[in-house]
Amino acid sequence: MAGERAKIRLFVDATLGAAQSVAVGRDQANYLFNVMRLENGAKVALFNGVDGEWTAEVVQSNKRGGILVCRDQALALQMPPDLWLMFAPIKKARTDFIVEKAAEMGAARIMPVQTRFTNADRIRQDRLQVHAIEAAEQCGGTFVPEVAELARLEDVLATWPSDRQIMFCDETLVGARAALSAVPTGDKWAILIGPEGGFSPEEQAQLTAMPQATAVSLGPRILRADTAVVAALALWQSERGDW
Amino acid sequence: MAGERAKIRLFVDATLGAAQSVAVGRDQANYLFNVMRLENGAKVALFNGVDGEWTAEVVQSNKRGGILVCRDQALALQMPPDLWLMFAPIKKARTDFIVEKAAEMGAARIMPVQTRFTNADRIRQDRLQVHAIEAAEQCGGTFVPEVAELARLEDVLATWPSDRQIMFCDETLVGARAALSAVPTGDKWAILIGPEGGFSPEEQAQLTAMPQATAVSLGPRILRADTAVVAALALWQSERGDW
Repeated sequence: MAGERAKIRLFVDATLGAAQSVAVGRDQANYLFNVMRLENGAKVALFNGVDGEWTAEVVQSNKRGGILVCRDQALALQMPPDLWLMFAPIKKARTDFIVEKAAEMGAARIMPVQTRFTNADRIRQDRLQVHAIEAAEQCGGTFVPEVAELARLEDVLATWPSDRQIMFCDETLVGARAALSAVPTGDKWAILIGPEGGFSPEEQAQLTAMPQATAVSLGPRILRADTAVVAALALWQSERGDW
Repeated sequence: MAGERAKIRLFVDATLGAAQSVAVGRDQANYLFNVMRLENGAKVALFNGVDGEWTAEVVQSNKRGGILVCRDQALALQMPPDLWLMFAPIKKARTDFIVEKAAEMGAARIMPVQTRFTNADRIRQDRLQVHAIEAAEQCGGTFVPEVAELARLEDVLATWPSDRQIMFCDETLVGARAALSAVPTGDKWAILIGPEGGFSPEEQAQLTAMPQATAVSLGPRILRADTAVVAALALWQSERGDW
């Protein structure tokens, strides 16, 4: 029935559209037909990050796979604002959390960056991307932010687009509050959360020299990086985003 | 040496003051003298949530306990704003997270509330209090918010103080954004985060009828309860708190 949203939501890497067939592989078939015990005729909400959310009907189901057919578009694609989130990876569980939270809070692109004082020298990009997909699945989102590969902050800043503002947060900047509302307007933004050890003097100097960069304080208490990510996204969404 | 902050921070349930002796028990002795290998003469930062942070010197250390003597006050007590956080407990790990984040973000009091659609019917108050203490230990705080026992939201609201505002957030209120800045000023506040199933119609009615209550939207995306806690605290701290 048009307008009735299915309870089970699934991300699929396939085109969605009226009468479009979508094949699901072993893992998703196991979830749908074994765990959730769906049968032919059952409705599932599908999204792919591009075509919005579609209500699809199970037409074939077995242990190794299945086929669903799109019936109605339940939601158009809802793009978040053009906001990137850059953060320095920390311990595994908290890095996973940062990606989940950034996806929930409406970051359009998630960029792990390696700073001078970052402990992690590699990330599992594929695993982090799965966390972003799961956050969208659970929170009703139709968009999935891309998780970029790890890059050096220095290199990222050296080729930074001139038309994208950066709001950077660093616990050593406590007291250096700049009002976000005082920054020249612009639709393209990025938030940069400093590593728990702070930026190096070179990184500080590089940031301070950029006309696109504004330091914003997150208050007098020291925040863990994962807390700072959500707090900074909330501030930005409230003042500059779609809240 | 006055002014030099010790690296190891410890919460103690004891009075702190110049020349005050503090006895530590088996667990903390194990941490200080076995894990961290401190010896007599070593400096430790102590706080108790009341007397600020004191630099204390180890004067006795053994496997079963030890004694430290306060030398200098490194920090005065830094009270957060008079803000309570009320939330409906969810799964264990995310409830722990909410308490940790609320302590980091400067809630003065943390109140788990049972709503009509809350799954949890009990909490481990003692364990949650430990999470609040650990957050203060790790984030350099000198204040520790009290975690209250679980209470029914209906009862809490029925005896609500007339001079304390409530900012309540409910995912079903998407679009019903009220600007926090338009609310009459007042120093006493509480944030109430709705359960993931939303408030019941009776709870909605009870809240709506309260002159102290203001509904504030956290944007067009559905947030998990733990994300909503940090986002709401960030909004409030930025507009009404000490950021």
